[in-house]
Amino acid sequence: MELTYKGYAGKILRINLSRGKITDQEIDNEFARLFLGGNGFGIKILADELDPDVDPYSPENKLIFMTGPLNGTRAPATPKYIVQGKSPLTGFYADSVSSGEISAELKFAGYDGIVIEGKASRPSYIYIDNGDVEIRDAGDIWGRDTFETQEMIKEEVGDADVQVAAIGPGGENLVRYASVIQGYRAAGRCGFGAVMGSKNLKAIAVRGDDSVEVAMPEEFYEWVDTMVAEFKKNPGTGKVLFEMGTPAIVNVANGLGVFGTRNWKEEEFEGAEDISGERLAKEKLYSRGSCFSCPIGCVKVFKGVYKGKAVLSEGPEYETLYSLGSCIGNNNLDSIILMDRLCDELGIDTVSAGVSIAFAMECFEEGILKDDEVDNLKLQFGNEEAAIECLRKIAYRDGIGDLLAEGTARMARKIGKGAEKFAINVKGLEIPGHSPRGLQGMMLGYATSTRGGSHHDSRPTTEYGVVDRTTTDGKAHLTMSIQHMTAVGDSLVLCRFTERVYGFTLEWNMEHDAQPEVLRTAYVDMVNLVTGMNLSLKELVKIGERIYNLERYVNTRMGMRRSHDTLPRRIMEEPIPDGPSKGMVASKEKLNKLLDEYYSLRGWDENGIPTPEKLKELGLIKEAEVVKTLE
Amino acid sequence: MELTYKGYAGKILRINLSRGKITDQEIDNEFARLFLGGNGFGIKILADELDPDVDPYSPENKLIFMTGPLNGTRAPATPKYIVQGKSPLTGFYADSVSSGEISAELKFAGYDGIVIEGKASRPSYIYIDNGDVEIRDAGDIWGRDTFETQEMIKEEVGDADVQVAAIGPGGENLVRYASVIQGYRAAGRCGFGAVMGSKNLKAIAVRGDDSVEVAMPEEFYEWVDTMVAEFKKNPGTGKVLFEMGTPAIVNVANGLGVFGTRNWKEEEFEGAEDISGERLAKEKLYSRGSCFSCPIGCVKVFKGVYKGKAVLSEGPEYETLYSLGSCIGNNNLDSIILMDRLCDELGIDTVSAGVSIAFAMECFEEGILKDDEVDNLKLQFGNEEAAIECLRKIAYRDGIGDLLAEGTARMARKIGKGAEKFAINVKGLEIPGHSPRGLQGMMLGYATSTRGGSHHDSRPTTEYGVVDRTTTDGKAHLTMSIQHMTAVGDSLVLCRFTERVYGFTLEWNMEHDAQPEVLRTAYVDMVNLVTGMNLSLKELVKIGERIYNLERYVNTRMGMRRSHDTLPRRIMEEPIPDGPSKGMVASKEKLNKLLDEYYSLRGWDENGIPTPEKLKELGLIKEAEVVKTLE
Repeated sequence: MELTYKGYAGKILRINLSRGKITDQEIDNEFARLFLGGNGFGIKILADELDPDVDPYSPENKLIFMTGPLNGTRAPATPKYIVQGKSPLTGFYADSVSSGEISAELKFAGYDGIVIEGKASRPSYIYIDNGDVEIRDAGDIWGRDTFETQEMIKEEVGDADVQVAAIGPGGENLVRYASVIQGYRAAGRCGFGAVMGSKNLKAIAVRGDDSVEVAMPEEFYEWVDTMVAEFKKNPGTGKVLFEMGTPAIVNVANGLGVFGTRNWKEEEFEGAEDISGERLAKEKLYSRGSCFSCPIGCVKVFKGVYKGKAVLSEGPEYETLYSLGSCIGNNNLDSIILMDRLCDELGIDTVSAGVSIAFAMECFEEGILKDDEVDNLKLQFGNEEAAIECLRKIAYRDGIGDLLAEGTARMARKIGKGAEKFAINVKGLEIPGHSPRGLQGMMLGYATSTRGGSHHDSRPTTEYGVVDRTTTDGKAHLTMSIQHMTAVGDSLVLCRFTERVYGFTLEWNMEHDAQPEVLRTAYVDMVNLVTGMNLSLKELVKIGERIYNLERYVNTRMGMRRSHDTLPRRIMEEPIPDGPSKGMVASKEKLNKLLDEYYSLRGWDENGIPTPEKLKELGLIKEAEVVKTLE
Repeated sequence: MELTYKGYAGKILRINLSRGKITDQEIDNEFARLFLGGNGFGIKILADELDPDVDPYSPENKLIFMTGPLNGTRAPATPKYIVQGKSPLTGFYADSVSSGEISAELKFAGYDGIVIEGKASRPSYIYIDNGDVEIRDAGDIWGRDTFETQEMIKEEVGDADVQVAAIGPGGENLVRYASVIQGYRAAGRCGFGAVMGSKNLKAIAVRGDDSVEVAMPEEFYEWVDTMVAEFKKNPGTGKVLFEMGTPAIVNVANGLGVFGTRNWKEEEFEGAEDISGERLAKEKLYSRGSCFSCPIGCVKVFKGVYKGKAVLSEGPEYETLYSLGSCIGNNNLDSIILMDRLCDELGIDTVSAGVSIAFAMECFEEGILKDDEVDNLKLQFGNEEAAIECLRKIAYRDGIGDLLAEGTARMARKIGKGAEKFAINVKGLEIPGHSPRGLQGMMLGYATSTRGGSHHDSRPTTEYGVVDRTTTDGKAHLTMSIQHMTAVGDSLVLCRFTERVYGFTLEWNMEHDAQPEVLRTAYVDMVNLVTGMNLSLKELVKIGERIYNLERYVNTRMGMRRSHDTLPRRIMEEPIPDGPSKGMVASKEKLNKLLDEYYSLRGWDENGIPTPEKLKELGLIKEAEVVKTLE
């Protein structure tokens, strides 16, 4: 049988907001074979087109919303889209992945993705109704929160089912970690909400009436049924994620003594039980849900009652229980539910917001920030009232909020006085709740992640139980494999939780035969059934490697070098002071050894720049030429 | 340990709309021990207070929204509330059960239920914010559809998370089968939306900040975890209902040749595959969801594209695929998705609407209704365009819609000319998609169901595979047991799908040891763990029997007798004409034999009136005295 490549609509929407110009760009099969979709498509477009020196807030920065070949099909756990561009938080290329029906809807409208450039002359939103694309006035909507914005646009276009990705006050006011909200889900990290704000772009609304063609429908649907059964059977996806969701990690991490507490001064939180997944599920569960095409159903709406007033939020997820819980020394679970909701309404990232507040709290307790510099908020650890106030101030850059809205790296520079020691970020991105001291592989993971302090590119999952977390042995190879996996995953674009069922990495699946064949080849099988590309598992790994190298290439052109592949000072200087993981440390020496091993495995030079040979080997010929000019 | 009764807030809200009077009524333990909650509470209140001769649309009719002891807890699959009163469709006591967060929310607000009487002097809605209850003006909202209404009220009270049960144009215009919509779910059957309309009551909005106290929390939460695993393991709840939901029944029923087609002229539909659950899941699935506290997750949003325009709907469920599909000879799946959505927006029941249209189609094809009597709609079987037009007309009682809005029993009387032969209802309620000819037990089920043509009181589940569907043997006992079970289920108030895991009936569980002990005693265990009542399984059966007898008592006072316990003429006169169940019939003789057996088992007299002895045995002393005066 001659297989044809059918998995894509094969079209990218290009919008120049300055000129009001709207065009279609066709994708050919060759491009798709090299870059797969989503993450791959976007990074290639940016590698080709983006001026490395562009200011993230300038009209010349490009903002990309991308889907992949699986989105809009019945492939399990593929409700995601990816946002890409130069990040106002890290100053490098970064991306952010979110669930949201807009992913499938964009495919139904006939597009794989949207590339936006320029800046609208006044507040605007983009309305895509199948092939009809308009840039519409958002004057009346500007200033509204993310949920109001979605409702108002649905009302305005007269279609209650249009899917709207929107920014809130956070994005409008250029909070460097402003999020994009669609439904109740956030593309939270790296500040793409602020990039939208800088372009006067309040929202993107999408409606599509088509469906996604699948190359081998019968075999695919049969495969889906088999996989759905596997998702149900798997203890992670079938039980823990369904019953508790990511909050299940609170007690796991705290039990190991690797639960970032009070700005990582400690890693054991005496209030963990109060903010645990177990407690959430027992006492706060309001309703459940699931994303498009997902058999897991990890979505939970929790209800809190703070100061006598009830609040519903989809979430908090684990990262928020850390960032606005343990990291600010807060064991008031209801306040975390409220803050989770507030962050989504205001359109700011819960992780960066919480860690930035924790940073300010430590500075305040250390006397580096004075009462009048923090609006007299008594900014001590555990003061959840002050934290709630800070969130509102951040979104509107009011008082101390104007400082907090910059994120910890810039805050440290502005504050001076040695505050930098307390700034918990990598490449400017605040780290999430997975310890680089207690999970020794995460050291290299955070240090070499494209976007910095990210658990999305550097997965901690294996170290919570599958591999030995106390050693660095084998972690360079593991980190690299995970990065290939996440590059492929973000290109398809699928949910990270698939790793529990399909296997942690593609290399892992090739090397281990611990699981049945049908699962080991799941990633490549679904790509082939949907697209008809007939890839091998090895070729899929190569695509992952190509994409990750391309990301690094783009970032080296923006100035990223070995010196950026580092960790927060506290993390490298202070061992975990107490608890089950007492004494564990992430030292400069360990990191350097890991980096040497990692660069060598990757075929990068000692400064962390991909060699021309490596790029050429990956078919990145033009890039191989350019990289020669870098130092 | 001295167990105290803790399962209830123990309070019912009483509202008189004529007088604007709002009071609380306390529930004592004795009342709860006799009537359990939900269905039981409501029917006892109506038995005590409702004038049997009341017109359903008069201010004196009482409208009850009730929850039960399990709602608002983590007990699996308990997201339901029950609406009760005298039905404008059947003219007897009836009830309608729906999923909806308003169930839990009402408990959180401190109420077990609401009893509404009187009529507001102008369009109004009830706003319950914990203990604060207001009757508010709904002048601006009147006329809006059910979804708009929910949004407008959320906006008006400034609380996006308030839960609103609303009526649409259907209820306002007194369509006799108007529904109540909360979220996307309908209390569809028996016309309580019209009762709301008759009271000038547009909506009820509820917000509660408390939680539900559980008598034995530790044991209860452990039990819940065990049960959630059982729901996941069970092929019905863990797989079929999750993957396809109720639409899975289409191919099952059609495969047996018991799928009501073209107004039950036939029971095999050549277009079944086109409107099957398999096709919906493969081609139309948009997103999934689950109700409050439910591990099944049968909720599905489907996307259809009708005449080039996309439409999303939560549903259609199986009954709608029958009523607006096979029953009107329509195999256009996208049109059914559109009509499902339309019915919810307009606030009309999909089953009664579809069967009423089917009835009109047959009358038109038979020449009983002429072109000018059906607004020149070419009302033939299979004309889905005409059906869509009819739905709008029904909600506004426009042209032919004014006739259709009356339901098949009244339509037949108005049309005359022998049309009654084609009116497919029992006690005025149009029957759903479960054949009383092909499932011989359903004969008695429909005939003796409190509300008439109902699959909610008379469960067809066992006959689709567990017991022999071709015989009437043992069906009197089975029907009675199911009625006890559903009375208990509607009192707790839980989802019917629990029957797949916990067992079909309470008697079944006592008599059969086919399943593990933990499942056989599930119903009574969860009641005891939540309420501390320490009931036995036998006592729970007795409560079911008490409630069912009380329903019959109320209805006999409204005039219900043996002559009402009957089936549609076609069903009793024509055998299934073709297909796998060809020749099966539900004759008058069979039904009479079944009724004799059933009345005798029940302790009712030959005219279907509960005997004073039976009522006394059930502790219904006052009722036993009254029933003596009936004939």
